[in-house]
Amino acid sequence: MLGNFSYKNATKLYFGDDSLQFLNEELPKYGKNIQLIYGGGSIKKNGLYDEIVKILKDNGKTIVEDGGVMPNPTIEKLREGIRIARENNVDLLLAVGGGSCCDYAKAVSVSIHCDEDPWDKYYIRFEEPTCEIVPVGCVLTMAGTGSEMNAGSVITNHEQKLKVGHVFGEEVMPKFSILNPKYTFSLPKRQMVAGIYDIFNHICEQYFSGEDDNTSDYLSEALMKSVVHSSLIAIENPEDYEARSNIMWTATWALNTLIAKGKTTDWMVHMLGQAAGAYTDATHGMTLSAVSLPYYRYIMPYGLKKFVRFAEEVWNVSPSGKTDEQIAEEGLQEMEKWMRRIGVAMSLSELGATEDMIDGIADATFILEGGYKVLTKDEVKQILKESL
Amino acid sequence: MLGNFSYKNATKLYFGDDSLQFLNEELPKYGKNIQLIYGGGSIKKNGLYDEIVKILKDNGKTIVEDGGVMPNPTIEKLREGIRIARENNVDLLLAVGGGSCCDYAKAVSVSIHCDEDPWDKYYIRFEEPTCEIVPVGCVLTMAGTGSEMNAGSVITNHEQKLKVGHVFGEEVMPKFSILNPKYTFSLPKRQMVAGIYDIFNHICEQYFSGEDDNTSDYLSEALMKSVVHSSLIAIENPEDYEARSNIMWTATWALNTLIAKGKTTDWMVHMLGQAAGAYTDATHGMTLSAVSLPYYRYIMPYGLKKFVRFAEEVWNVSPSGKTDEQIAEEGLQEMEKWMRRIGVAMSLSELGATEDMIDGIADATFILEGGYKVLTKDEVKQILKESL
Repeated sequence: MLGNFSYKNATKLYFGDDSLQFLNEELPKYGKNIQLIYGGGSIKKNGLYDEIVKILKDNGKTIVEDGGVMPNPTIEKLREGIRIARENNVDLLLAVGGGSCCDYAKAVSVSIHCDEDPWDKYYIRFEEPTCEIVPVGCVLTMAGTGSEMNAGSVITNHEQKLKVGHVFGEEVMPKFSILNPKYTFSLPKRQMVAGIYDIFNHICEQYFSGEDDNTSDYLSEALMKSVVHSSLIAIENPEDYEARSNIMWTATWALNTLIAKGKTTDWMVHMLGQAAGAYTDATHGMTLSAVSLPYYRYIMPYGLKKFVRFAEEVWNVSPSGKTDEQIAEEGLQEMEKWMRRIGVAMSLSELGATEDMIDGIADATFILEGGYKVLTKDEVKQILKESL
Repeated sequence: MLGNFSYKNATKLYFGDDSLQFLNEELPKYGKNIQLIYGGGSIKKNGLYDEIVKILKDNGKTIVEDGGVMPNPTIEKLREGIRIARENNVDLLLAVGGGSCCDYAKAVSVSIHCDEDPWDKYYIRFEEPTCEIVPVGCVLTMAGTGSEMNAGSVITNHEQKLKVGHVFGEEVMPKFSILNPKYTFSLPKRQMVAGIYDIFNHICEQYFSGEDDNTSDYLSEALMKSVVHSSLIAIENPEDYEARSNIMWTATWALNTLIAKGKTTDWMVHMLGQAAGAYTDATHGMTLSAVSLPYYRYIMPYGLKKFVRFAEEVWNVSPSGKTDEQIAEEGLQEMEKWMRRIGVAMSLSELGATEDMIDGIADATFILEGGYKVLTKDEVKQILKESL
């Protein structure tokens, strides 16, 4: 049953290979000082940095540099970003990069005018911002996290060995995002594939929960089928514009709140993956893929009906002459075949995790409700061991 | 291929059987004078009118009455609504009803501060508003048109025998809409079914166009499957909350611009149905159902691949041992079976149209591009004759 909920998502999206020009439409809405946020510098190599700097200058803006955002942005980097923003009185945070840059920009945006420590306030106590929020815009160069149209922000604290996501309210969503599928062409294949699995897993986490048969489930299946279809084209030809554009668009809708509306969700794969990520610093999507199948195989008996539907609707498993358990297991086998075919990490060992880390990762795993089975700490350890 | 496009839809939705209370959150954002727009008075019988009046008074608002909006709102009624709004200096147009009330409210909203004649400006010349737009809010009591989260507005001019829709820009979308599935329970079954077909047809018009295989097509199939599934429950038990809530939610997403993004669309069934509607004043959804199958059977050979996909994905037609034409025709047969089962109008004669009206209806039919075959006037007449 679709429960009571509200929905608003006011991010303006500009999509396509001609979308960067719309930065010229957005910039006049904001003040002079633009904090230009980016990662390791790949945008300097491929020319995007120069293009954006030119547009900013043509619009009379002052550029405040904030490069070097790492794949799993740290609390130390966040503190640096806040300092840069305060010292330069910035009016807009312009993130150019993937989900990490966008997540980081949102974390900075809610902290600039906040006196409290952002880690404690947002990532430990999960409070909402009570201060002025500096607007965020995004030029996306990697598809996966959906950060371009949601209010989520994941920050890593290495000292505390914690990687924590906070989903803020709608006012923290980017004001605009520019999505040009061609910017994703130059990503290494491993990054592309990690993004694809991240998309797929976002949908799974919202799909595998609840007993209802509502519109969100149908939409989830549609997005899963679309991303699976396009992924098989993209791994053969990463420059297939149609496939990369569908992947990019699917990423946005996989995690912009729509498919979770009116239903329960289960984010345990993210909890397990993020805890492993804090120990290994591995790519987010790969930590998710490494723990997914052991987790889903473990909870499958508790949500059998949904796993049967998943097998039939997403993977076209024929039910004829099979028990529900067989159909459901065949669905997970098809999923596993697809994961191996696109080449995601199938174990935590591949990502550098070792047996002696299991207890620590398990302790760092938040146990959430919402899934077909609320895990005990022992079950978390068991699933992590099976993921090694 | 997903082409270049922009997307923004900032309507705030409050969904569920507890959603009316959120009117208290929205009202303080607007001035004192609220134009209360409603239809034939059913909301006075079922108590909703009293509930809303109480909330308006509790929020210190002055109520400006504007009842009597008819199912196909006329240009004369629109002129009356504009006069009421101007005389009372209204700050918010609150539409309580179905798509007609909401469409009408949007037409008033773009006309209050506009000196030109709204019919000529918006429904003949299709211009955009250049004046201040008065905000619109909506309390929805019927699912179908999607008007609660889009910028469309259809107005009928009986003198000119024209029923014309204008899709305005995003700034004309309602600021908020309240969607309580229980408000749809009291609708006569014929109205419910007309709404269901309207939803399905909105999806068809965006789906049956283009040769691409993009995410929008997958989403369209998901919405079609969901509304077909729920419709079969709702015709047996109109008070099945789960079914009615899925129908209501599907209606919103079937026509809030999402599934048309990045692709071409074909609105010919609406053009044919609206022209017939201007002659018969029949219920919108029923005019669409009456012309749909003759139209789709006519264009099927020109878009065969998509009709094959439709048959397999939406209606689970098995392709084995069949030609593409057979698969496609079987899909349309399944669609026809479903239409008969829920009880929509299967011909224009049922709606009061006669042979002598065909030439007039054909002349009033706008011929659009975007479909698999751009119709000639003779083909329009042929399809209308087959629809009789």
